[in-house]
Amino acid sequence: MATGTSTPAGRWEAAENLVAGLRGGDVRALARAISLVENDAPTASAVLSACFPYTGHALRIGLTGAPGSGKSTLVDRLAAHYRAQQQTVGIVAVDPTSPFTGGAILGDRIRMQGHHADPGLYIRSMATRGFLGGLASTTADIASVVEASGKTRLLIETVGVGQDEVDIVRLADVTVVVLVPGLGDDVQSIKAGILEIADIFAVNKSDREGADRVEREIRAMQSLGGHAEGWVPPVVRTVATTGEGTAALAEAIERGAERLRQAGKLDEKRTAAWQARLVEMIRQKLVRELVRHRLGASDLEAHARAVAAREEDPYLLVEGLVRGLLDLHREDGNG
Amino acid sequence: MATGTSTPAGRWEAAENLVAGLRGGDVRALARAISLVENDAPTASAVLSACFPYTGHALRIGLTGAPGSGKSTLVDRLAAHYRAQQQTVGIVAVDPTSPFTGGAILGDRIRMQGHHADPGLYIRSMATRGFLGGLASTTADIASVVEASGKTRLLIETVGVGQDEVDIVRLADVTVVVLVPGLGDDVQSIKAGILEIADIFAVNKSDREGADRVEREIRAMQSLGGHAEGWVPPVVRTVATTGEGTAALAEAIERGAERLRQAGKLDEKRTAAWQARLVEMIRQKLVRELVRHRLGASDLEAHARAVAAREEDPYLLVEGLVRGLLDLHREDGNG
Repeated sequence: MATGTSTPAGRWEAAENLVAGLRGGDVRALARAISLVENDAPTASAVLSACFPYTGHALRIGLTGAPGSGKSTLVDRLAAHYRAQQQTVGIVAVDPTSPFTGGAILGDRIRMQGHHADPGLYIRSMATRGFLGGLASTTADIASVVEASGKTRLLIETVGVGQDEVDIVRLADVTVVVLVPGLGDDVQSIKAGILEIADIFAVNKSDREGADRVEREIRAMQSLGGHAEGWVPPVVRTVATTGEGTAALAEAIERGAERLRQAGKLDEKRTAAWQARLVEMIRQKLVRELVRHRLGASDLEAHARAVAAREEDPYLLVEGLVRGLLDLHREDGNG
Repeated sequence: MATGTSTPAGRWEAAENLVAGLRGGDVRALARAISLVENDAPTASAVLSACFPYTGHALRIGLTGAPGSGKSTLVDRLAAHYRAQQQTVGIVAVDPTSPFTGGAILGDRIRMQGHHADPGLYIRSMATRGFLGGLASTTADIASVVEASGKTRLLIETVGVGQDEVDIVRLADVTVVVLVPGLGDDVQSIKAGILEIADIFAVNKSDREGADRVEREIRAMQSLGGHAEGWVPPVVRTVATTGEGTAALAEAIERGAERLRQAGKLDEKRTAAWQARLVEMIRQKLVRELVRHRLGASDLEAHARAVAAREEDPYLLVEGLVRGLLDLHREDGNG
């Protein structure tokens, strides 16, 4: 009766066709596969499964830094550097600073122009997540789709200092934290958090006054310890606008990755990342199933209205809903 | 057999005692109740239920801005202003920039000193969330516990520009976005996102050069539309270090709240906030139950290891786990 992607078999077939397309170099198939994953379409899971066997080989490099740190330009420089070395490159840029606007980021088009004709480079921006989403997990999924298209270097770029961004870069193999001189008084408060996630520091715009100070501050914090034993995150100075320091940064990244590999830490890190992703995937799927099968959006709104009016206790409500759903305590009274 | 908080009845009794204590002005009971919620203790849900009837009356004011914008000082000024007006004040400060360090923020103690003897003011910082947590939802819960202690103004302060922070301030009634002159080149990229969540803009450190420019930029963006009809977010200039502009900011907040009330929008906003919180609460609880009852942490790690080694497909795994858990399709083959 049902055809196309409305049956599981149809979804698998569609997904396999799409993945065959993107494996074969079809950029439109790649873009379509990413959109399906980003929009959490019914086919998304099948697309990701079909991509999965082709993943795990690329090096995933996370880059994070405050708005204005010039990180996008730095990422572009790194991409060009890798291309010159015959590596293929995927860039996934996450900008959670425009959560309500949705849609594509203008910058994409601007940035794409320089590389338009290069099939060895693919750039994708994600502007937002929905309230049900898990931004880090979805970003990692999209990186997997890009990797399945045959890219050997994945650059995952994110703005900011929030937990979401930390979660995103945690899923990378090697993390570069981009700092710049003169970004306000208490950059220290950022550094305290990121010191532990940085494998490498890039001091961008290092031709500006204050670069010495930023580097000194990083060194001072490092001397207090905090990072995993053995590896002291190097500080690399860059000027993304001119390209200065790009090669040194790429080299630091390779050394960082190599060290992880030799110490057996890369597998460990990827296992930890997968554990976090599995939890997030389970969470997302559970909520989706719940909303789909047991609780319509309108019911949820009615409950929210009752709670806001203090007519219903939300904690007891959730307890009851979840208990009913999980059927943990026999079937003793749920609708 | 079981005593204390190990039975549901024991948990309820403990929670009710604690909430009676914090309602009666016992600051240690309040601190303890918040810790239980923050740590997601078994008693947390009972504590929140016991607090719930005493909530919904305070005005919740969200304040967000980049690190270095002086928002904490501004929050302190607002608190002092409200205290002078005989309002009681709770401050919940969220700093997701130090996600790995956990524990209390030093600033707490420094900031508390000025108000130490004032029972009408309570300040609490949250440094982090775990990987399973929902920061926005937990922050809202903690604000509820603080409100139940009898506070009439809740100031919810958060650093940064990420999705988490947006989610946090979305749960407030009125949102103040704090900007400062001279915070780097592309503050614009922040503004694009926050324009839609700001009910009020505070231009702090407005004695510095560039305050005019910041205000002009906000006005220019406002002229492009984007905010809810009728209310054009006012721009208030402040100098938190001297207290200049605090009264004007407080007045703008009251006017904003009053306008929401008159238009019937406050209930609407709170209903939307509760809907988001319910989804998050359901999600958290489902995952917790799953991990507790069906899947140990060690199982999860074993799965993660298998996935990282490409021996197990994570998408099929999650599908199977969730299906088994929800028992949606009869009992046709899950472990």
